[in-house]
Amino acid sequence: MNKLFTVVLILIEMTSFAQNNRIPSKGLAMFSKEVAFKPYEFSRHAIGDNDILIEILYSGICHSDIHTAKSEWGNTEYPIVPGHEIAGRVTKIGKNVTKFKVGDYAGIGCIVNSCGECDPCKNGEEQFCEKRMVGTYASKDQYHNNEITQGGYANNYVISANHAIKIQKNADMKKVAPLLCAGITTYSPIRFSKVKKGDNVAVAGFGGLGHMAVQYLVKIGANVTIFDINEDKRADAQRLGAVKYINVNNADELKGLNNQFSFIISTIPTKYDPMLYVRMLKKDGELAIVGVPASENRPILNVVSLIGVSHRKIYGSMIGGIPETQEMIDYSVANNIYPEVEIIPANGKAVDEAYQKVIDGKVKFRYVIDMKTLN
Amino acid sequence: MNKLFTVVLILIEMTSFAQNNRIPSKGLAMFSKEVAFKPYEFSRHAIGDNDILIEILYSGICHSDIHTAKSEWGNTEYPIVPGHEIAGRVTKIGKNVTKFKVGDYAGIGCIVNSCGECDPCKNGEEQFCEKRMVGTYASKDQYHNNEITQGGYANNYVISANHAIKIQKNADMKKVAPLLCAGITTYSPIRFSKVKKGDNVAVAGFGGLGHMAVQYLVKIGANVTIFDINEDKRADAQRLGAVKYINVNNADELKGLNNQFSFIISTIPTKYDPMLYVRMLKKDGELAIVGVPASENRPILNVVSLIGVSHRKIYGSMIGGIPETQEMIDYSVANNIYPEVEIIPANGKAVDEAYQKVIDGKVKFRYVIDMKTLN
Repeated sequence: MNKLFTVVLILIEMTSFAQNNRIPSKGLAMFSKEVAFKPYEFSRHAIGDNDILIEILYSGICHSDIHTAKSEWGNTEYPIVPGHEIAGRVTKIGKNVTKFKVGDYAGIGCIVNSCGECDPCKNGEEQFCEKRMVGTYASKDQYHNNEITQGGYANNYVISANHAIKIQKNADMKKVAPLLCAGITTYSPIRFSKVKKGDNVAVAGFGGLGHMAVQYLVKIGANVTIFDINEDKRADAQRLGAVKYINVNNADELKGLNNQFSFIISTIPTKYDPMLYVRMLKKDGELAIVGVPASENRPILNVVSLIGVSHRKIYGSMIGGIPETQEMIDYSVANNIYPEVEIIPANGKAVDEAYQKVIDGKVKFRYVIDMKTLN
Repeated sequence: MNKLFTVVLILIEMTSFAQNNRIPSKGLAMFSKEVAFKPYEFSRHAIGDNDILIEILYSGICHSDIHTAKSEWGNTEYPIVPGHEIAGRVTKIGKNVTKFKVGDYAGIGCIVNSCGECDPCKNGEEQFCEKRMVGTYASKDQYHNNEITQGGYANNYVISANHAIKIQKNADMKKVAPLLCAGITTYSPIRFSKVKKGDNVAVAGFGGLGHMAVQYLVKIGANVTIFDINEDKRADAQRLGAVKYINVNNADELKGLNNQFSFIISTIPTKYDPMLYVRMLKKDGELAIVGVPASENRPILNVVSLIGVSHRKIYGSMIGGIPETQEMIDYSVANNIYPEVEIIPANGKAVDEAYQKVIDGKVKFRYVIDMKTLN
């Protein structure tokens, strides 16, 4: 009983210490599913021995932020501070941390914690942690009293050092943030499918994710065809090195494309027919699904249809684990592969407008919020 | 004009010759979508220079026959003689035929003609002929005045020699017929997915197709788990060399199976949730779909679900081309791999009863009609 008493006392003390050392934070939040960002003050959990505090410099706007903020992927708890494309600078480190020192650049993607002990974690696939990964925002943090995480449209973030990504000193910090989601989400399946020089490949959906996929594929030396529904992006496709741009609303352009591609990545964020792209695959070709439309617009496949086009494969890919995210950042910075970004100030009006442009497909190609302008 | 006239005359003569030389045939047909087979006399196109006439010895009953005969895959034209698992003996050959001589054993699967000139045909994938393969039954034969083909529940068949399969003299003719569909349908994806010794693999649906898949996989040296809904088949599973039999109606048995298999083949002929099996795949594992349920029971997949189990692949596979079918027959006979068959006589009552047992999942594992008993 004495021992138990001591343990309880220590726990109370730790909790109280943690409470006392919570990190004040401010950001931009939505308070209902209507897009209207307003300033929001909150706090983050204390900096544990294995954690770091990051001062956020830039935060990308991902379509996932919009789906979540608008409760399109299920009911979201409000207020919500979105943002899982975060680039910043380390300002404090826990006493056990060796991976970072104060002043280093660091990035945060979609994962801020995981158990570290299960098979997926050990294999560097923390997104499939058997005890559930903690997401960067709108996620119950089982390592911190089940509080709901708040994201990167904010001035700072406290994260387990093992889940933060090192960013090289020479990185273009204005552009690096979207790599943490749009970059890894496309890089991972491209590596997994072993795309190589000279392959005929395609990217369906030429937005934030799609334009990263194009750049990785062009860098490999593949011949890239892009599918989108927007005439405005034709010139951008050519500029980024695609050999062909297909407007899928134009039936004529879709002719003669069956059996052409060894790899297609679908980043499409709306409803579509997966078979349109499956039929374009060569034998043994692979369609990688990474785009996640709103719940009511999910693309449906009658799997029997796959029989009619034997031996064309379809699979999904969800972001990437921490080691692969680090590899992707290192590769992207070394090869000067970045998203095309438009920097906007950290105020509600600017973010509201950016959301609308993303929804309307008018963004080229990623909005990044300059968090230093937060008032 | 003279030339044209001559051509027309020759064409008329050829047509008339063909008409005059049509091959009388008798078989068992359904006359509406109610299962009730009755004797049926009809004729087949004349034996062209590149054709052979086969006396049918045995004809397998495939679930596809039932779906088609009952108009479950769309409206069927009646009367219909089903049957695309045919084993017999060559009784006549066209003058250009060198592949067969009279007296040889020969088999017919699902394909009886194709253009022979398009890329799929040249690649030995006649099932994807760009001008459309001619199916063994219920198929418009564009090489013979668009007549509708009639299948193998009959005493003979006239087929392009290039589309018939050579069967070795030492083959077990009573059992060989179902290889022509159930055999190739499972053999092809197993080869395509490169299953190897020691792999953990599974077969979903332990019927005519499934029990062939099990045998091929066991022969390779893979560890085979079988999924079905029938307690009666547990002993058969063990006898055929499976390491485990799972009754999917028993929730307890389904526990702990995620991330276990590098390959799963689904031969399931009814509605099911493909994700149940996708989740059981290891990373880079493949689910091959070969079973085709009735139209209203097609298994539906929300492709976004695939994202939650990154890098698990799904594809379909449709029978196999002529060269691969030949390879499969040679391999099966050489390795003594055959379906387990129950021989039934060629009368309406016996076939009606067999259909009902297949529908009820009571067949172990394939009915084969002894066509020599046809009255």
